[in-house]
Amino acid sequence: MDLNADLGEGFGIWRLGDDQALLDLITSANVACGFHGGDPSIMHRICADAAERGVVVGAQVGYRDLAGFGRRHIAYGFAELRDEVIYQLGALDAFCRLTGTRVRYLKPHGALYHAAACDEAQAAALVAAVSGYDHELPVLCPAGSVLAQLAVGAGLRVVAEGFADRNYLPNGSLVPRSAANALVTDPEEVAARAVRMASERAVVAVDGSIVPCQVESICLHGDSPGAVGSAALVRAALIDAGITPMPFA
Amino acid sequence: MDLNADLGEGFGIWRLGDDQALLDLITSANVACGFHGGDPSIMHRICADAAERGVVVGAQVGYRDLAGFGRRHIAYGFAELRDEVIYQLGALDAFCRLTGTRVRYLKPHGALYHAAACDEAQAAALVAAVSGYDHELPVLCPAGSVLAQLAVGAGLRVVAEGFADRNYLPNGSLVPRSAANALVTDPEEVAARAVRMASERAVVAVDGSIVPCQVESICLHGDSPGAVGSAALVRAALIDAGITPMPFA
Amino acid sequence: MDLNADLGEGFGIWRLGDDQALLDLITSANVACGFHGGDPSIMHRICADAAERGVVVGAQVGYRDLAGFGRRHIAYGFAELRDEVIYQLGALDAFCRLTGTRVRYLKPHGALYHAAACDEAQAAALVAAVSGYDHELPVLCPAGSVLAQLAVGAGLRVVAEGFADRNYLPNGSLVPRSAANALVTDPEEVAARAVRMASERAVVAVDGSIVPCQVESICLHGDSPGAVGSAALVRAALIDAGITPMPFA
Amino acid sequence: MDLNADLGEGFGIWRLGDDQALLDLITSANVACGFHGGDPSIMHRICADAAERGVVVGAQVGYRDLAGFGRRHIAYGFAELRDEVIYQLGALDAFCRLTGTRVRYLKPHGALYHAAACDEAQAAALVAAVSGYDHELPVLCPAGSVLAQLAVGAGLRVVAEGFADRNYLPNGSLVPRSAANALVTDPEEVAARAVRMASERAVVAVDGSIVPCQVESICLHGDSPGAVGSAALVRAALIDAGITPMPFA
Repeated sequence: MDLNADLGEGFGIWRLGDDQALLDLITSANVACGFHGGDPSIMHRICADAAERGVVVGAQVGYRDLAGFGRRHIAYGFAELRDEVIYQLGALDAFCRLTGTRVRYLKPHGALYHAAACDEAQAAALVAAVSGYDHELPVLCPAGSVLAQLAVGAGLRVVAEGFADRNYLPNGSLVPRSAANALVTDPEEVAARAVRMASERAVVAVDGSIVPCQVESICLHGDSPGAVGSAALVRAALIDAGITPMPFA
Repeated sequence: MDLNADLGEGFGIWRLGDDQALLDLITSANVACGFHGGDPSIMHRICADAAERGVVVGAQVGYRDLAGFGRRHIAYGFAELRDEVIYQLGALDAFCRLTGTRVRYLKPHGALYHAAACDEAQAAALVAAVSGYDHELPVLCPAGSVLAQLAVGAGLRVVAEGFADRNYLPNGSLVPRSAANALVTDPEEVAARAVRMASERAVVAVDGSIVPCQVESICLHGDSPGAVGSAALVRAALIDAGITPMPFA
Repeated sequence: MDLNADLGEGFGIWRLGDDQALLDLITSANVACGFHGGDPSIMHRICADAAERGVVVGAQVGYRDLAGFGRRHIAYGFAELRDEVIYQLGALDAFCRLTGTRVRYLKPHGALYHAAACDEAQAAALVAAVSGYDHELPVLCPAGSVLAQLAVGAGLRVVAEGFADRNYLPNGSLVPRSAANALVTDPEEVAARAVRMASERAVVAVDGSIVPCQVESICLHGDSPGAVGSAALVRAALIDAGITPMPFA
Repeated sequence: MDLNADLGEGFGIWRLGDDQALLDLITSANVACGFHGGDPSIMHRICADAAERGVVVGAQVGYRDLAGFGRRHIAYGFAELRDEVIYQLGALDAFCRLTGTRVRYLKPHGALYHAAACDEAQAAALVAAVSGYDHELPVLCPAGSVLAQLAVGAGLRVVAEGFADRNYLPNGSLVPRSAANALVTDPEEVAARAVRMASERAVVAVDGSIVPCQVESICLHGDSPGAVGSAALVRAALIDAGITPMPFA
């Protein structure tokens, strides 16, 4: 099972999350590419550190919106979004090559992640960017999303991810963030859910039913207090259960 | 003899210069990479158009300063400048690969061009960026500059450029822009000077002496009224003199 | 009747439209405030030129989106949009005070103009910004829009504007830009429609019916070829019809 | 004696320093205005919190350089720097007015602070901005700097600040940051130096001599670990010594 997390989301003097601690726990780093967060020196450093530890680097592409951290939907046209994603892919890949690796996958960030799950034009722009840039690049996104459908249709590999710290509805989708029970907050329970996802490809839904959850990667979070500790628990629990964290790419 | 010009220097809704007209005249396009000007969609379009016409693409890298168009000196540290240049190289190269070509050289823009001519740290940052990104990439810059010296020292190819529309001092350097006679404004004279540069590798200095001018490229300008007409005259005069414009790279 | 137009929409080295020519024709200048276009030096210059000619200055506030020129919808939250609008109002007002005038009204730009016409949260953010900054400031916007309703409800003065170069539906709304007959392109016809708007507060709809059009300002455009000529025709036609262009504020 | 500190230096999702803790200790808040740090919502919040606690607000104006946090020298021309400073003053003042106060002084940030201490053109741009915007606004800067001289020459009030956590040379200037003994790191010693500055208008230089230090404000820092604790010690020591912290403006 792969463990992915968002890294390199600072900018200039500002930092977000504990990149170094997460690099010791994850197998795939979603590296911010400078549009919603990240800057060239942060990207260079993360790529070097990831390469050294055998952590695979993916492009965490986002809207051009530092002020909103890429979390506000922007009504991009197809071509401009495609081109901004290609730009980000190329920029990150430069640091990967320099540090002896390559960009190995793409994961959209924030509002683009959500838009691509349901908006055909934005999903198509991501697919066009990946297809044009490197047809071998997998796309990390929610199973069943519009992005996943279009990517598969274009012959791209789609990798589904799950969230051990989010509750699921019986239909297999996430409980919306607006709901009171959106999050699973007990670290032990998060770790147990990660183990079930990895070993049984399933999750216990809010009604107690066991729902299939066909994921190849579990997304960990590093930007909240206690996040790193929780991520460490997940990793340790997987290893205890005989599951070796390893990159999907 | 190569003919180079700055292209793609618009941003968003704004445009600068007549890119399409220049693409029919030049052999090497210095494409802005989004930091002082240029944006992903402009870069995509220029790369495609250049590839179609056999015009070679170079990375016109600049300071992160849209408001100042990269024309204000910024006291960058070595590592952050190196990393911003690598970022720009990678981003432009993504569009080049997509359109069947590659970034073939680097040329610094504006205040970075001037800084790299005399500032060791900034010149070294450019050399480190090119060395790390692609050691085969030539650097287009003034002969005798600090950048040229450091680039040669690092084993990089240096390509010198001349300015047919600028007056030269007897020592071979340019008359400073602050001087009244900095510019050669008569298009016919500009064309004649370009022919002499190309055929004799020489230029007539302000005192009438003939000065060696060992250049592999002539820089044309496209952002002033009449610039395209003057560039067309240069190209026609070279061809009349039996000199075929062709890329240095 | 007031004549308004968007001014100062360049940025750094880039320019858009012919500000100087428009300043001789209009009575109210919608000055861009640096978020979608405009920069401090452009703002300073326009405020000084407007003050000199007795042209009233309004704040043309927009999304923080230079790359998209404020024309892409952004899903702002209420507080951040309110605060960005207050920031823009204050910044422009500084140049107005310096040049002996004041910001006299607010007009939203581009995607914000359209969002505020139908989106309650964004319209409310504009109203909160104006109410907090200066309760005497009129809001220039389409009659009947959500923004107009909320502004009136908050005790703000609303000024409706009409478009002499746009076709209207029998219900008094604009023919959508996506329709083939959205625009009136014949400058003489545009001028005649402006005169009717000013003298009869009416417009001929696409079905030939005469529709009430209660506007206090006519919006002129300056960013297309021939735009300044068309604007001059409108002004001349109004004066010929005995209508003096004068600011609403 | 006044106590000033830099506040509101986050941007978007990112934060720097503990603004709320500092607001309880200082009497003057240098609020970042969005160019090197700060954003409209942060500015709004700080102005409201400062007004509530009776802390005076000053405009901490900086270069347009989020990526470099305003710490890199930029070769601004006079007019563009003047205009960017006026823009920042107006923007911050909007939030001050809204929260029942006004911008009460200006303090340049980072590289602009250093440039204005020795560069005539940049110092003159700051003076022109303040003179044009509000001639009553004091300028907080180092005594004896070029900025101080030009400001006094223009009839502006200059307020000198001292640094209790920096060592001084016998000539009254600061030990350069590059020197090993630039900083005073013991919090108790910092507090004692602040008391001497406030009560005797003097400081003990590195050679043990007592040097006059005619300051009206002491600058506290909030962006390092332990900074808030050290600032609290300074405040407590002043009060213990019978010196009431109070704004200079």
